Amino acid sequence: MGAEGERDDAAGRGTIVTPSAELPPLGPEERAALGRIGERWREPRDPDELPVDPTLGRSGRPPRPTRFGRLVPIEMFNVGEPDELVATEPAHLPGSQTGRLLTRARRTLFGPPLSSASVLYERMRKLVALPVLSSDLLSSVAYGPEAMLSVLVLAGTGALGLSLPLAALLVVLMVAVGLSYRQTIPAYPHGAGSYIVAGDNLGRIPGLAAAAGLMLDYVLTVSVSVAAGVHAVTSALPGLAPVTVPLGVLVIAVLLAGNLRGVRTAGNLFVLPTYAFLVAVLALLVVGYARAAGRGFAPVSPPPVPAAEGLGLLLVLRAFSSGAVSMTGIEAVSNAVPAFRPTEWRNARTTLGWMVAMLVALFAGLVGLIHLDGLVPRPGETVLSQLGRETFPTGPWYAFLQATTALILLLAANTAFNDFPRLLFFMARDGHAPRRFLHMGDRLAFSNGLVALSLAAGLVFVVFRGNTTSLIPLYAVGVFLAFTLSQSGMVVHWRRHRGPGWHRRLALNAVGAALSGLVLVTAAVAKFSEGAWVVVVAVPLLVLLFRRIHRHYATLHQALALHPPAPAPPGPAGSAEGEELPQEVRHLVVVPVARLNRASLRALAYAASLGQPTLAVHIAPEEAEADRFREQWQAWGDHLRLETIVSPYRAVIGPLAHYLEALHTTRPELTLTVIVPEVVLRRRWHRPLHSRVEQRLRAALRALPGVVVTSVPVHLAE
Amino acid sequence: MGAEGERDDAAGRGTIVTPSAELPPLGPEERAALGRIGERWREPRDPDELPVDPTLGRSGRPPRPTRFGRLVPIEMFNVGEPDELVATEPAHLPGSQTGRLLTRARRTLFGPPLSSASVLYERMRKLVALPVLSSDLLSSVAYGPEAMLSVLVLAGTGALGLSLPLAALLVVLMVAVGLSYRQTIPAYPHGAGSYIVAGDNLGRIPGLAAAAGLMLDYVLTVSVSVAAGVHAVTSALPGLAPVTVPLGVLVIAVLLAGNLRGVRTAGNLFVLPTYAFLVAVLALLVVGYARAAGRGFAPVSPPPVPAAEGLGLLLVLRAFSSGAVSMTGIEAVSNAVPAFRPTEWRNARTTLGWMVAMLVALFAGLVGLIHLDGLVPRPGETVLSQLGRETFPTGPWYAFLQATTALILLLAANTAFNDFPRLLFFMARDGHAPRRFLHMGDRLAFSNGLVALSLAAGLVFVVFRGNTTSLIPLYAVGVFLAFTLSQSGMVVHWRRHRGPGWHRRLALNAVGAALSGLVLVTAAVAKFSEGAWVVVVAVPLLVLLFRRIHRHYATLHQALALHPPAPAPPGPAGSAEGEELPQEVRHLVVVPVARLNRASLRALAYAASLGQPTLAVHIAPEEAEADRFREQWQAWGDHLRLETIVSPYRAVIGPLAHYLEALHTTRPELTLTVIVPEVVLRRRWHRPLHSRVEQRLRAALRALPGVVVTSVPVHLAE
Repeated sequence: MGAEGERDDAAGRGTIVTPSAELPPLGPEERAALGRIGERWREPRDPDELPVDPTLGRSGRPPRPTRFGRLVPIEMFNVGEPDELVATEPAHLPGSQTGRLLTRARRTLFGPPLSSASVLYERMRKLVALPVLSSDLLSSVAYGPEAMLSVLVLAGTGALGLSLPLAALLVVLMVAVGLSYRQTIPAYPHGAGSYIVAGDNLGRIPGLAAAAGLMLDYVLTVSVSVAAGVHAVTSALPGLAPVTVPLGVLVIAVLLAGNLRGVRTAGNLFVLPTYAFLVAVLALLVVGYARAAGRGFAPVSPPPVPAAEGLGLLLVLRAFSSGAVSMTGIEAVSNAVPAFRPTEWRNARTTLGWMVAMLVALFAGLVGLIHLDGLVPRPGETVLSQLGRETFPTGPWYAFLQATTALILLLAANTAFNDFPRLLFFMARDGHAPRRFLHMGDRLAFSNGLVALSLAAGLVFVVFRGNTTSLIPLYAVGVFLAFTLSQSGMVVHWRRHRGPGWHRRLALNAVGAALSGLVLVTAAVAKFSEGAWVVVVAVPLLVLLFRRIHRHYATLHQALALHPPAPAPPGPAGSAEGEELPQEVRHLVVVPVARLNRASLRALAYAASLGQPTLAVHIAPEEAEADRFREQWQAWGDHLRLETIVSPYRAVIGPLAHYLEALHTTRPELTLTVIVPEVVLRRRWHRPLHSRVEQRLRAALRALPGVVVTSVPVHLAE
Repeated sequence: MGAEGERDDAAGRGTIVTPSAELPPLGPEERAALGRIGERWREPRDPDELPVDPTLGRSGRPPRPTRFGRLVPIEMFNVGEPDELVATEPAHLPGSQTGRLLTRARRTLFGPPLSSASVLYERMRKLVALPVLSSDLLSSVAYGPEAMLSVLVLAGTGALGLSLPLAALLVVLMVAVGLSYRQTIPAYPHGAGSYIVAGDNLGRIPGLAAAAGLMLDYVLTVSVSVAAGVHAVTSALPGLAPVTVPLGVLVIAVLLAGNLRGVRTAGNLFVLPTYAFLVAVLALLVVGYARAAGRGFAPVSPPPVPAAEGLGLLLVLRAFSSGAVSMTGIEAVSNAVPAFRPTEWRNARTTLGWMVAMLVALFAGLVGLIHLDGLVPRPGETVLSQLGRETFPTGPWYAFLQATTALILLLAANTAFNDFPRLLFFMARDGHAPRRFLHMGDRLAFSNGLVALSLAAGLVFVVFRGNTTSLIPLYAVGVFLAFTLSQSGMVVHWRRHRGPGWHRRLALNAVGAALSGLVLVTAAVAKFSEGAWVVVVAVPLLVLLFRRIHRHYATLHQALALHPPAPAPPGPAGSAEGEELPQEVRHLVVVPVARLNRASLRALAYAASLGQPTLAVHIAPEEAEADRFREQWQAWGDHLRLETIVSPYRAVIGPLAHYLEALHTTRPELTLTVIVPEVVLRRRWHRPLHSRVEQRLRAALRALPGVVVTSVPVHLAE
């Protein structure tokens, strides 16, 4: 179970998303053991022994309608290859009426189910992928420059001039991180996010730390973007302010519904607003620089602002790390490579290039224009809005800019809906997250991951009452942790593989890692008390949780793994659960009987029909009742051995469970099959009228080794 | 299923409380059918076929310690008669560690379990029964006279003189009702409450209406008494007023705990306060009348109070019905007859006589003394307190009177704890209440009934915030409904049976019924809008609920009843669940296999070892996975027939359930046994890590006829 071996395996499997991931193939050792176990099975099967044709199609009997008046179930299956049936869509409807209604409602909302065969077609063209994956990144420029200026202005108007060199540094960082991910994508040709790159090169714990950081970042992306978007709406329509929290929850629910419908549909929904925002900001830059050119690029003097703090290194670093939130979302492409059309890595790399270029253009352009126009951040109006008002004094362009800004903020959350479930899929495949995140829903989306993200983001949103300001400080730590680990991982990668030009590549990644690490440390320290501590505490806890989940799955896997059969133990003293061959199973069938009625007689008949040694047990609350029951048993004909247990303290489950354990202690190699009749109640309100002995007995017997519980259902005619 | 026939049966069984009531004997027809079914079983049993000695004791093998390190379970059972074991007390401890801890805690709180054999000894001596059963009745005099005077005074001081004739009328009513119940007790020598008497003579619906009225009354008795008692405490210690609700809930919990310990212990707890209250009030009367004799029994003129209403018939009737709340609790004895020591009915009748005599003496004495002292009800101080202050101007007697009054009000609630579960027991025995109320707990108390009463009373208490005034109007309607129905029932009884002196007895009961009915109508009409409407609405709803519960049990009983076997249907076209003989059961064993591992191989081995036709089914999310699995199956040796179902929409449960239904449709006479491996998880937090296919499959298959589900547990070694 070496970490490296598993990693390599994971890298080999890459990030291909397939429904078969839920049922991974056997390893070579287990394969071999399987054959040797099979050799020891007693007898080859008799192909004609079945009383019914399992392929349903060739029996020649006309199918009859079922008593439930549903679709004739035989028609739900098509005969495929030999010994294979293919379930049609109606076969997926649940059996109960309520369940069918719910499923129909869900399908109306989210569309008809998509076959596993369609998984390849749900890929994105580059022109679709770009808006879907970049809305998070590009929307950050709406608040990134302002976040940086807000820190600088604390040192007075004079310090604002520092924005240009800091922006240049950030552009270097953006380019470095962008180039690093560009290098990563072909190095991991099936696509790779920080989780896989860090885990692959630095080890399991850094990989999990990167994953934890990214997961927190995705949750916060949704919360922050929705909070900012809703705030933009409530600023325009103050009447909606009291319903901020329900409105945000509604937006998250709509995002969830859109994504549950499937990747392509969700992508289409988001193409237009992203491009519209791009057009609006580019128009702003063109017109703005044209106006500046008109006055010979002479900067306007900003209004004087008194200094609140001295201009120290820490302040500059805080400004730098605040400006760096413009970069959140840059990793989106590398996690989503498999969602691209083939050749996936090439399309992904191209898309990443475009995205970084756009980010640099918008970010640098905006910072420069703000400097030329001498704008200062002030409460009540965003810098972007000031810039819009300055540049477009009249006409609809200002309104267009503000509307697309609000819209892209809301849609930025969608990036997280693409990446979060995919990250969970990779983690679940490695056993670091619950296996249910491997399951692809009706619409080939990872429904469980989408729901988990929506619940977490909704909870954060409600807890923080949709307040952007208090959410922002938590935001950058997680993502820069992932950046740092991923790029450090690439440094190790180049040292190990030493391909052509590895020195240059290593240097590039090292610069990126160092800069990211600097931002990470600055953000964590400078914003610790403002909320970053939550992330600093949560990441190790999440890593611990992932480790424990992994340990559980590993234990389980080892316990259930196939081993070559050991030589049979001498004598009959084996344990009932150790045996895996039919001829080794020794049966004792036990039927608890409370009263003699149709249900219990049916259970007794079922037990006797198995042809194994059978024992009936009756638990009596009093000696007198025991005598009465034995007398009835005699009247019936005493067909099976009956043991009566008087339970003077009137409990039923406890004595029965202990009696079975006592039998098991006497002969540990016996497999006890407990056969319990279960009256199936049609209506839910009838349940409290019954003591549900069957369920309680099942719970009590769970812990006993070698005890098999069989429920014989009795359905009431009416 | 005639109502009369069932009634007679119930009357014959009387009100004997026995743990065996949970397992009633078979009727004669079912007995006969049982024998005829038994004749058709294929073969007599082989007495030596069992691989283990079911009596545990004679095997000769030394018992080994179990792997769970618990008590060796063999020692938990004593060998009784042939084929009988007697469970010892440790056998009742649950298997899980948490369960054992909880049970131990419960036993520390409520005492060790009592054997069914002790049921006879938990009876009450008369001197214990009197305080236990009379606290409700006697405590009523603390507020009954005042309730009557409060209505009269609305017509001015002059109307207060009417209290003497009204009190005389109430005394007549008390004596009439008392005599009626005295007559009832020997007429139903096993003891009988209003439910049984009304049901027996007037029919099922009146019986259930009486039961509903009594149940509401018991719940309200607890709530009102606790509210009044807590109010007395918070009046003395105003600092406790904000915690009225938690304090009341605590008192109810203490009452519940005391009663869960068992009847006798609870009785002992309550002997002293009741007798102390009796002493206090008797002393008050003696001293008061002595003082009045000192002035020649000349009444003091009451202070003038202006009239708020005219003195009409309705006012007098309202005063009468308000005074009648003094009688609540008079029926306690007749419901509790079986709790007396033998000869039960004679002791009960004697106790009832004492109780009524004491009630009359206290009630009449107090009304007379209040009149002589010219006291007027006023807010802020109860009339009883005024009387005490007047009579005992100095010394500790006044404090003693107030303390015992507060205490007996709290303890009056205890009467309901005796009668409510007993009433539910009788109703459950007739199938009108959930059968779980037949079960006697560890301590031979009807734990379920006690808990139900506590929950209902606690809920009422919390909803009304412990406010006595708003609870009182709901109070009398239920109990006078029961009185009226019970005494009308006795009228019918005498007309039917015409024993010696039946004319006199009939007349006595008729007077009682008429007076009770008058109070009932007056209370319901006059207090309708003050809260009595709740009871007027709730009684029919409860009757409806009881009827529906009864219908469910009757349907179930009929469906499960044994019938003589019908001639075998021609051909193999029977239904799988119709067959009750082993030789008629046709098996097909189906094993769903997701992956080949130790768990599924063990399920396959178990299935094959049954020696019945076996089919393995694999659900694949994709065609490719199906091929891969089939290839592994071949590698194993293809020992069993495998059918693969490709589920292109990735659901597992739906297609599997529909496939089994399809198999069943093809051959309805087959019994399908679905064998599912179940990995038993030790820790609760591991559960979300697994998809619990076994449980979901079980739920989906419940509705299918003839499908038996078998769980083969796999326990992890670590």
